[in-house]
Amino acid sequence: MKVKIKSEFDLIPEEGWRRKIYEVVYLSETRAGKIFDIILLILILTSTVLLMVETIPIIRLQYHKEFYYIEFFITLIFTAEYFLRIICVKDRDEYIFSPLGIIDFLSIVPFYISLFFPVWHFVGIIRMLRILRIFRIFNLADYMHDGKFIVSALRHSSRKIYIFLLFMVIFIVIIGALMYVIEGGKNGFSSIPQSVYWAVVTITTVGYGDISPGTPLGKILSIVVMLCGYSIIAVPTGIVTSEFRRQRKNHIVCNRCGNDDNDDNARYCKICGEKII
Amino acid sequence: MKVKIKSEFDLIPEEGWRRKIYEVVYLSETRAGKIFDIILLILILTSTVLLMVETIPIIRLQYHKEFYYIEFFITLIFTAEYFLRIICVKDRDEYIFSPLGIIDFLSIVPFYISLFFPVWHFVGIIRMLRILRIFRIFNLADYMHDGKFIVSALRHSSRKIYIFLLFMVIFIVIIGALMYVIEGGKNGFSSIPQSVYWAVVTITTVGYGDISPGTPLGKILSIVVMLCGYSIIAVPTGIVTSEFRRQRKNHIVCNRCGNDDNDDNARYCKICGEKII
Amino acid sequence: MKVKIKSEFDLIPEEGWRRKIYEVVYLSETRAGKIFDIILLILILTSTVLLMVETIPIIRLQYHKEFYYIEFFITLIFTAEYFLRIICVKDRDEYIFSPLGIIDFLSIVPFYISLFFPVWHFVGIIRMLRILRIFRIFNLADYMHDGKFIVSALRHSSRKIYIFLLFMVIFIVIIGALMYVIEGGKNGFSSIPQSVYWAVVTITTVGYGDISPGTPLGKILSIVVMLCGYSIIAVPTGIVTSEFRRQRKNHIVCNRCGNDDNDDNARYCKICGEKII
Amino acid sequence: MKVKIKSEFDLIPEEGWRRKIYEVVYLSETRAGKIFDIILLILILTSTVLLMVETIPIIRLQYHKEFYYIEFFITLIFTAEYFLRIICVKDRDEYIFSPLGIIDFLSIVPFYISLFFPVWHFVGIIRMLRILRIFRIFNLADYMHDGKFIVSALRHSSRKIYIFLLFMVIFIVIIGALMYVIEGGKNGFSSIPQSVYWAVVTITTVGYGDISPGTPLGKILSIVVMLCGYSIIAVPTGIVTSEFRRQRKNHIVCNRCGNDDNDDNARYCKICGEKII
Repeated sequence: MKVKIKSEFDLIPEEGWRRKIYEVVYLSETRAGKIFDIILLILILTSTVLLMVETIPIIRLQYHKEFYYIEFFITLIFTAEYFLRIICVKDRDEYIFSPLGIIDFLSIVPFYISLFFPVWHFVGIIRMLRILRIFRIFNLADYMHDGKFIVSALRHSSRKIYIFLLFMVIFIVIIGALMYVIEGGKNGFSSIPQSVYWAVVTITTVGYGDISPGTPLGKILSIVVMLCGYSIIAVPTGIVTSEFRRQRKNHIVCNRCGNDDNDDNARYCKICGEKII
Repeated sequence: MKVKIKSEFDLIPEEGWRRKIYEVVYLSETRAGKIFDIILLILILTSTVLLMVETIPIIRLQYHKEFYYIEFFITLIFTAEYFLRIICVKDRDEYIFSPLGIIDFLSIVPFYISLFFPVWHFVGIIRMLRILRIFRIFNLADYMHDGKFIVSALRHSSRKIYIFLLFMVIFIVIIGALMYVIEGGKNGFSSIPQSVYWAVVTITTVGYGDISPGTPLGKILSIVVMLCGYSIIAVPTGIVTSEFRRQRKNHIVCNRCGNDDNDDNARYCKICGEKII
Repeated sequence: MKVKIKSEFDLIPEEGWRRKIYEVVYLSETRAGKIFDIILLILILTSTVLLMVETIPIIRLQYHKEFYYIEFFITLIFTAEYFLRIICVKDRDEYIFSPLGIIDFLSIVPFYISLFFPVWHFVGIIRMLRILRIFRIFNLADYMHDGKFIVSALRHSSRKIYIFLLFMVIFIVIIGALMYVIEGGKNGFSSIPQSVYWAVVTITTVGYGDISPGTPLGKILSIVVMLCGYSIIAVPTGIVTSEFRRQRKNHIVCNRCGNDDNDDNARYCKICGEKII
Repeated sequence: MKVKIKSEFDLIPEEGWRRKIYEVVYLSETRAGKIFDIILLILILTSTVLLMVETIPIIRLQYHKEFYYIEFFITLIFTAEYFLRIICVKDRDEYIFSPLGIIDFLSIVPFYISLFFPVWHFVGIIRMLRILRIFRIFNLADYMHDGKFIVSALRHSSRKIYIFLLFMVIFIVIIGALMYVIEGGKNGFSSIPQSVYWAVVTITTVGYGDISPGTPLGKILSIVVMLCGYSIIAVPTGIVTSEFRRQRKNHIVCNRCGNDDNDDNARYCKICGEKII
């Protein structure tokens, strides 16, 4: 369950004004640091909600300008913050190419690009990812631990899930081609890609109903596909659940041979037989 | 697996008429108490069904008055019962601010408010929660224990589920924004909130079909989202299932051989036969 | 994992023609018995398929008479078989009131009633349950064992599932009432029962789309309901999965105290400490 | 967890040009073998994508000829490859009747048949199965192992799933007949097969919405069916999950203390420290 985390303490400048800024911008132990973080969180949330609400036609018509100025203002603050972070950190590359650093960068760039290419405007929604800072701000160590637990369980079961998805994709394409032939290009099954879309909608049990079989034979095949999907849905669940269980066990390290795969109820190391204390 | 339950015996008045009323109203050991409880249950069910059926246009037209009078009558009984409960209990605050006390209060208040603000009428459906008394009435100790088991398992896994939902929300908003850009505001994706609604409908595999992608690129993204949702649905199941298992067993450690896999009702270690203290 | 099964050997008549008929009708060890069983199975399947296909308008118009005669003929055979079973069995009540006996009875009665009340015609589909005889016919002991395993696991987890459904029903009715108020009786939410129907369709992730929220507030509530449903769906899975695991373990009976709840890897009885051989 | 795999080494010809071709066509250890395999993979993917995209009406109109020639060309290569494989292998029948051999054959035949019967054209999509060679090409031993793990877990739980599906089918047909009678042949429930289709769509939580109940009684039955389906969906998950767990561990029994919970890679008993032989 090891997840590599960059220790932030290597990044702290020794002293001077840079250290003071660092404490405000990066840490949240001082009063100023806490206030800074909370203001940041409010700005992130405001900015995300604005970007979303702004697209509602009726609101855009009325408040277009106001929204634009607020966004402009928030992006300016984020930009200032980004440069502050770069200035006050000890090892710049370490921050800039860290996941959080990349997210910080991506949360300001789209706005500036959108000045020239308006389509880029909505890419700014990526700044929502900054919400993940919430864990640091409120010192949610327990939550962070659980988050890592979930990510780790998913990562360990990813190989099985990839294979499962490969089987699924092959199955889905074949079913899609079959339905295209059976329905004869009608009832929305106008091409194989379209039929494949239908097959995915069906097997994942989403079932929009924008395409649904019209011929008796198509319905019979659908029934088979649905019952298959119903049984197959158990597979990813089984994979992840059994991984969750495995993760749960706290393995004990043997002092002599260093084997770290002993069960938590082991009294003797299973590799070298040493008594475990 | 500890769920704090208010012991009801602290609330029993020592003697006199209040004790007699208490026995009828709160307990169901006497014949009068049982009859009282069953009448109450019938009134709760009648009242809930009435409130629901009353909204069917064709029925409202014909039986509006009759329904109103029955509801009025039942609410009066509930009100009387509420005051009886307050009067005969020893520690009033203990009852009034207990979950059941609050439900009892909320089941009568909406009716009186609705005399002035008709919209509040349907808030009365909250009285349905009183059905939970069914466990006490029929002395369903086993069922109650299982209910607590489920609640406890959910509570213990709630932190992991919150984090999972946070990841989901971020994923959903980004997918929503992406679909809004891809579909260009058409096919029902008229704004980002609307697209987010679509993303939730899709990932949870509900799939109403009131909004569904129209462009080829939108359909391809949908396919990816659906297959993701299909794999991700395994996560809450994995979380809850592994919690259910953990809840199930309280293992006891043997002092001699250290085997910690003894059931919680074991009297001798199953591996070495040592008596368990 | 005890499922009470009626031993069929108490029902065998000692000798004479009744015993011979018994061997053909009830058992499938002789050649005649096997042929009888297979013919029966074919008739059951034919009859079920006919009843289904018969309802397709285009087929009913053309083959109404033919279908009627075949069904009449099959029902006559089933009737004859039913009386044969009654005649040749030793303890008649034992057969008549056994599950299989009741199914046999229910598979012929609807046809005769339908002569007078045509609506009863389709109740005959119940004869499909006779397919369950397939296990006996092909001596599918392993399959039967697995079937009992599933039934037993469901029965053991039924109490938890009932409670879960009770919670669900309360949640669903409250959500339904809320949506009725929010949508103001429009967009298909014409009454609370209708809204409750929508809530069930949504939480179970079926999502027909015949009713879907139209107002922004309704959509926001839907999002919350769907995400809840997504997390809650894990509960029945967790219940059944952990029951499946528990069932799997083969408990060992102690020779001294008779405790039958020892784990299959126990070396000493956990209740009395006796060594298990 | 034994899955019978044909050892490919029995098929290698001892020496000469056949051995050289064998190394290129079957193995991927030499440089030529690797290049051959990667070209093959690209051709398989191209061919599959072409077959799918070709069915989009707008593309077919414009590029029909080009697509035809490319497919013709790729099929020729596949045919040449197929004969090469037959020529250079030691035991021809071994290859021809192996799963991969049959897939190779099926991936070329439909094209030739389609020259006379155009409908067969799309059966060619079966060549997609050749993607499974990807495991060999990239030497994905870990992935292959996980793939076998999934297949093995499904195979071991297949018997339980068959029985579960049998129960489901009986339940579905009875519900279908019931809905046909209740809805009186209206609202899309025009025949029992149609109603059965609806029942499958509902219980598997796909929920297209092309058929949905219109009468109050039909909606009430739907609610019951959906809540049942919601609880029942847990069964295949429970079956597969508990099988996944069982597959995971091969426990070893300690000869001294009898602890049978040692991992399959243990060398000393984790409880008593005894060496495991």
